[in-house]
Amino acid sequence: MYRLVLIRHGESTWNKENRFTGWTDVDLSERGVNEAKQAGQKLLEAGFQFKYAYTSFLKRAIKTLNYVLEEMNLLWIPVEKTWRLNEKHYGMLQGLNKTEMVEKYGEQQVLIWRRSYDVRPPKLEESDPRHPINDVRYAGINEKGCAPATEALIDTVERIVPFWKSDISKKLQEHKEVIVAAHGNSLRGIVKYLKNISDADIVSLNLPTGIPYVFEFDENMNLVKDYFLADEATLKKLMEEVANQGKKK
Amino acid sequence: MYRLVLIRHGESTWNKENRFTGWTDVDLSERGVNEAKQAGQKLLEAGFQFKYAYTSFLKRAIKTLNYVLEEMNLLWIPVEKTWRLNEKHYGMLQGLNKTEMVEKYGEQQVLIWRRSYDVRPPKLEESDPRHPINDVRYAGINEKGCAPATEALIDTVERIVPFWKSDISKKLQEHKEVIVAAHGNSLRGIVKYLKNISDADIVSLNLPTGIPYVFEFDENMNLVKDYFLADEATLKKLMEEVANQGKKK
Repeated sequence: MYRLVLIRHGESTWNKENRFTGWTDVDLSERGVNEAKQAGQKLLEAGFQFKYAYTSFLKRAIKTLNYVLEEMNLLWIPVEKTWRLNEKHYGMLQGLNKTEMVEKYGEQQVLIWRRSYDVRPPKLEESDPRHPINDVRYAGINEKGCAPATEALIDTVERIVPFWKSDISKKLQEHKEVIVAAHGNSLRGIVKYLKNISDADIVSLNLPTGIPYVFEFDENMNLVKDYFLADEATLKKLMEEVANQGKKK
Repeated sequence: MYRLVLIRHGESTWNKENRFTGWTDVDLSERGVNEAKQAGQKLLEAGFQFKYAYTSFLKRAIKTLNYVLEEMNLLWIPVEKTWRLNEKHYGMLQGLNKTEMVEKYGEQQVLIWRRSYDVRPPKLEESDPRHPINDVRYAGINEKGCAPATEALIDTVERIVPFWKSDISKKLQEHKEVIVAAHGNSLRGIVKYLKNISDADIVSLNLPTGIPYVFEFDENMNLVKDYFLADEATLKKLMEEVANQGKKK
């Protein structure tokens, strides 16, 4: 049996302020740190023993992973970081307050930008300091011309699914237990592929922050079952919170 | 120009208790955490921009590196972990209090075990839970039969120098700035090689905890200069502390 665990980073300082984050490299909030530690405890109690880990280029995911691994006494395992696991790039919306956006453009337009499968927010100019071309960490992908200036979910899916096929799924077969600490939309991409979810349905799948999402595969890498490692009450509460983020307050 | 930075982990809970640590996976003390953060600040102010990092399999080095990288906003760079950067393995002495050892065996014998180049402490039995064969993280090297049950400094040097030649020096040429967060004795091995220090002299080289040690190389990878990134007073104080650790209190 193979076990994959996906975990969305704990609450960030911008989740808390209700702002569009995307590739902005914001830190975990204190609650986010605690969510990560609790996830590590849950995974330890459930007997997980990861041999390999993936995360994004963004500190809220990297630190979530570090806290999880520290709780599990697994800081020593190899950790691979990739821009392909980054959050969806929100283009010009990055840094704006969600409530203000709702007031300005209306709940429907904001919901489309957050949740439509293929409508992209306005893209960043190359002169904008928020553009990946102005960040040294993306030098490698800028050279290849694939750093995005905005994305719809379809773009995020199309950059993560090939990486699942070429890298993560192979490491899972090699090491049997792998953890991926990333973001709402890059994880949606993996879940969409693994569970064969339609373009229309994936946009309403809400992953809670800091809750381990376990996928079990048989020896032929067929998905056998998937479940969240949390009690029902916690899970329900968290999912409702995520679903309410796009609504006008 | 190429710049290598070596950093010995910040104070650990066992440094504080004056116990032989070796491969025991103890945590940083609060002081150790602060030392690491300060080192990160110093490196940031000095304009370092690492592209690649190495550390050991032990959390006190890994966490030191993570704190340094976080202060520098570089958590996203690749980090490679290797047992070859682990502390010297202290065999049967691991876990014992240095003061007690001095009382039992005398200061001279303890100094020999701590600081002679080729005298090994008594080795661990395979049945001993402290033996690497009983730790999953060393499964890979146990298979090859190279997990040590005790080491003298010569053994530590002989496992790190080949890795310097085959890996670290190549990454330095590729990326120009590399950081290595590790331990007193594995770093001694690198310093011995880079500065061509004799077997007799290397045993009295004391590296302070948490102070970046910078090596600058010219375009042909000849060592041009080396220096600690700290003010004179801090440096002198720390080195005296390390020199006094083996003395009877």
